[in-house]
Amino acid sequence: MNTANHRRLLIRGCDVLTVPTHGDCTVLSRQDIHVTDGVITAIEPTVHDDKTTQTGRTDDVEILDGAGLIATPGLVNGHTHSPMVLFRGAAEDVPVHDWFNKRVWPMESNLTAQDVGFGALLACAEMISGGVTTFVDHYFFPEQIAEAVATSGIRANIAPTYFSSQGPAALEATVAFAENWHGGADGRVTVSMGPHAPYTVGDKDLTTLADHARRLGIGVHLHASENLAQSESSVTRRGITPIEVLERTGILDAGVMIAHGCGIVPGDYDLLAAHADRVAVASCPKVYLKHALWPLTPIRHLLDLGVTVAAGTDGAAGHNTLDMWEALRLVAMTQKLETRDAMFLSVSDTLRLAMRGGAQAARLGDGAGALEVGQRADIVLVDLSGIHHRPLHDPRAALVYGVQTLDVKSVVVDGKVLMRDRQLLTVDVPGLLTEIDSRVARLVDVSSGASVQFYDP
Amino acid sequence: MNTANHRRLLIRGCDVLTVPTHGDCTVLSRQDIHVTDGVITAIEPTVHDDKTTQTGRTDDVEILDGAGLIATPGLVNGHTHSPMVLFRGAAEDVPVHDWFNKRVWPMESNLTAQDVGFGALLACAEMISGGVTTFVDHYFFPEQIAEAVATSGIRANIAPTYFSSQGPAALEATVAFAENWHGGADGRVTVSMGPHAPYTVGDKDLTTLADHARRLGIGVHLHASENLAQSESSVTRRGITPIEVLERTGILDAGVMIAHGCGIVPGDYDLLAAHADRVAVASCPKVYLKHALWPLTPIRHLLDLGVTVAAGTDGAAGHNTLDMWEALRLVAMTQKLETRDAMFLSVSDTLRLAMRGGAQAARLGDGAGALEVGQRADIVLVDLSGIHHRPLHDPRAALVYGVQTLDVKSVVVDGKVLMRDRQLLTVDVPGLLTEIDSRVARLVDVSSGASVQFYDP
Repeated sequence: MNTANHRRLLIRGCDVLTVPTHGDCTVLSRQDIHVTDGVITAIEPTVHDDKTTQTGRTDDVEILDGAGLIATPGLVNGHTHSPMVLFRGAAEDVPVHDWFNKRVWPMESNLTAQDVGFGALLACAEMISGGVTTFVDHYFFPEQIAEAVATSGIRANIAPTYFSSQGPAALEATVAFAENWHGGADGRVTVSMGPHAPYTVGDKDLTTLADHARRLGIGVHLHASENLAQSESSVTRRGITPIEVLERTGILDAGVMIAHGCGIVPGDYDLLAAHADRVAVASCPKVYLKHALWPLTPIRHLLDLGVTVAAGTDGAAGHNTLDMWEALRLVAMTQKLETRDAMFLSVSDTLRLAMRGGAQAARLGDGAGALEVGQRADIVLVDLSGIHHRPLHDPRAALVYGVQTLDVKSVVVDGKVLMRDRQLLTVDVPGLLTEIDSRVARLVDVSSGASVQFYDP
Repeated sequence: MNTANHRRLLIRGCDVLTVPTHGDCTVLSRQDIHVTDGVITAIEPTVHDDKTTQTGRTDDVEILDGAGLIATPGLVNGHTHSPMVLFRGAAEDVPVHDWFNKRVWPMESNLTAQDVGFGALLACAEMISGGVTTFVDHYFFPEQIAEAVATSGIRANIAPTYFSSQGPAALEATVAFAENWHGGADGRVTVSMGPHAPYTVGDKDLTTLADHARRLGIGVHLHASENLAQSESSVTRRGITPIEVLERTGILDAGVMIAHGCGIVPGDYDLLAAHADRVAVASCPKVYLKHALWPLTPIRHLLDLGVTVAAGTDGAAGHNTLDMWEALRLVAMTQKLETRDAMFLSVSDTLRLAMRGGAQAARLGDGAGALEVGQRADIVLVDLSGIHHRPLHDPRAALVYGVQTLDVKSVVVDGKVLMRDRQLLTVDVPGLLTEIDSRVARLVDVSSGASVQFYDP
C-alpha cells in the first residue's frame, strides 16, 4: 500500500466493545484499531506500549491514544429533529396537544433557513461530543442541515419534512433535495423522503413520495402510530390503522423508518412482518414519559417480527438534550417496565439495539453498528475511570446504566477525528453559541399567532 | 463580628436558584452568597466584579468564584445504601427475588467492616462530586459509614441496618451506635433506627426500635410496602398492610422515612395522613424500572396527604451510580406516566421535592433545602454553559432534564468547600480506588454459598 495516497489512523491501546449479531457483547482488552481511508482494516492486540515500535509510521499515521478508554461503535440517534436544540427547555410540563399547538409549532413558525443551519450545527456539535456519529433527522430547511453535517464531519440520514398543506411545489422541493444530496459529503449525507405523518399528509402525497423513494433507491422516514390515540383516531376516521395506511400507499414496500410506533397494534403485526426486511422503528421514551403517553413502543413484539428497532432522542424541545446514552438507557428501563420482565432488553441486547439497530435504521449498510474489519470507522472512546463507574465490575453495564456524555473523550467518524480529548475539532463552538444566543428572543416570541400546523391527529 | 474567630466563605457572582415552599422556583442573577460558620448570612446582588472591593476581606474570607454558575441547594439522596457502590454493575437484568437471593445478599455476606468503610468513602466522594450534600443511608457497619462522612465533610442521616435474625445483641448495637453518633461530626452525622423491613424484623423488635427512637429524639428509616406484592403478601399472611404494621408498632408515631412505598394502598391513607408531620417517603424509580415493578410510589396522593416525599437512588447495585440528578429527573418523568398527567410534578415541583422534600426526609430542620439566610450552607455550583444546555431558555428545566453530575463544578457543605472546580478536597480518590480495586475479586465471589438473608416478603 502506498501510504502517501491514503489517510491512516491508529487508535492505540484501547479496550474494544464487541457487539455480535446475537449473544453477549464482550470487551477485548488492549487493542489497536487500524483505519485506512475511513475503513477499519484491523483490530489486533497491542503488542508494545513503547512508541519506538511505531517508528516510521507516526509521520504518516495519525495516532489516537486509547489507553484506559473503551472503544465502542458510534451511537446512532435513530430519530431526531436536530435544529430543535434551539427550543430546549422552552416547552415543559404540557400535554402533547398543547406542546404542539401552544408551544412548538408556533415557535417553529419563526425559523429561518439560517436559524436552522445554526441550530443543526449546534446539534451536530452536541451529538459528536456525546458519542453520536450518525443521526436520522426529520426537519425543514434540509439543505442547511446537510451543510452542517458536511461541515461538522458527522454522518446523517436527512428527511426533509413535508406537510400536504405546503402544496406540490414543496413536495417537489423535497424530492429535489434528495436528488441533490443523497450520497453527499463524501457519502456521509444520505436522504429519506420525509412526509410528516399520515395525519398531516394525504394518501396521494404519501404514494407519490413512496414512488420517489423507490425510484431513488432511498427510504421513507415519518411519524406513524405515535401513540395509541392516533391509531384509534385513524380507525375511527377512516377504518384503518396508520400502519395500514403505510401499506396501501406503498410506504412499507419502499422501506420506512417509523418514529415512535407506540400505537402499533397486534392487527398491524402481519403487515410489519411481511416488510420486516425494510421497516425500522425508533423508540424515544424520554418524550413518552414527559408527555405521559402509554403504551410504549412494543419493542419485544417488533423484534420478534424481525423488524429493526433503534433508539432515538426525538427533538431536544422534548428531550432537552441529544444524549443518546440516556436514550438507550431509558429504552432498556422502560421496556423492562412495559413487558414487566426485568430480564428483557439485557445490557447486551440494549447495546445491540442502539448500535446495530440504529445503524440499520440509518441504512448504513450490512454489518454496520459494530467495530469490525471492513466497516466504516465510526468509533467512540469512552472513559470509564471516573468514580461514578468504580469499581468497574462490568463495562457493558456501565455503558448502559452509568455513562454520561461528558465521559466521552474522543470521537471518530469515517476515520476522521472529530473530537480529541473533549476538544471539538470541526465546530467553532464559542462563535456558534454567540450567534445562536443573538437569535433566541425572536425564536420564542409567539405573539404573531402563526403556527406551522395544527395538531389534531 | 470578630472575623478572627469565625470561618467565612463568600461565593461571588453566581446565579441563585430559589426554591419557595409553594409556586415557581426562580433564578436570581449575579448574587453574592455570604456564609459565616457554616450558616448563610446574606444573599445579595453582586455590586462589583472588581476584586479590589474585597480589599481587607480576602485574607480572612475564603472566596469561591461563582461567575457563570448557578447555585442550587445541595441535593439530598433520600434513600441509599452507600457502600453498595462496591457492587455497581454486578447484578444486572434479574428480577427482584434473584437480585436479592442470587446476587446481592450473597455478595454482601463477603463484606468486612473495612470494605464498608472504603465503599462508604467512595460513595461520599461520588455524591459530593455530583452535587449531593446529604444522604439518608441504611446499611451494616454504620460506624465505618459515619467515619467516612466525618472524613469527607458530607452530611448524612445513617440508619444501622437490623434484621431480627441477627438477635438482640445486634439490636442493642444499633441503639449504641445511635447514642454514640447522633449529632457527631459537628452535627453532620445524625442517626435513625434502621429495622430493615416489616418482613425481616418482627413486631416486637419494631416496637423496641420505635421506643428507642422516641427516647433518643430521632426517627426510624426502613423499607416498607416496597411494592404491591409485599403489601398483598402482608395482608394474606397477617391480615394487615405493612403501613398498618408500622402504626401498630409505634413506628409511624416515632416518625419514619419509608423507602419506596410503591405498595402503599388507599386503605393506608388515613394512617399516613394522621402522622403526616413525621412521615416521609423516598421514591427511587430507576430501580423500580430496572426490576419491572409497577405501580410506582403514589407521590401525588402522598403529597395530597401532607406526607413529605423525597427522591433517592437506592443502592448503586441497582442504580449503578449515585446520580441524584438522574434520580430526580426519573421521579418527574415516571410520575407523569404514573398519573397520566404531563403537567404533574412540574419542573419547580420536582426541584422542591428533591431539595426541600429531601432535606425534610433527612431531618435537616425547618426550612432546610433552600438557599436562605439562616440555613446551613449546603450549596452546589452547577455549570449550565455546556453545549448540551444551550441555548439556555430555562435553567430550571436544565437542572431537571439536562444536568449531568459532571456539570457540577463546586460543592459546599456546612460552609466548607468540599469540591472546587471539580477537584475533591477531602478524599484521596486515587489511593481509595487502588484500595478498593484490590478487594473486588473477593467481594463478588459467592462460592461460599453464604447470604445475609433470604428474600421472601
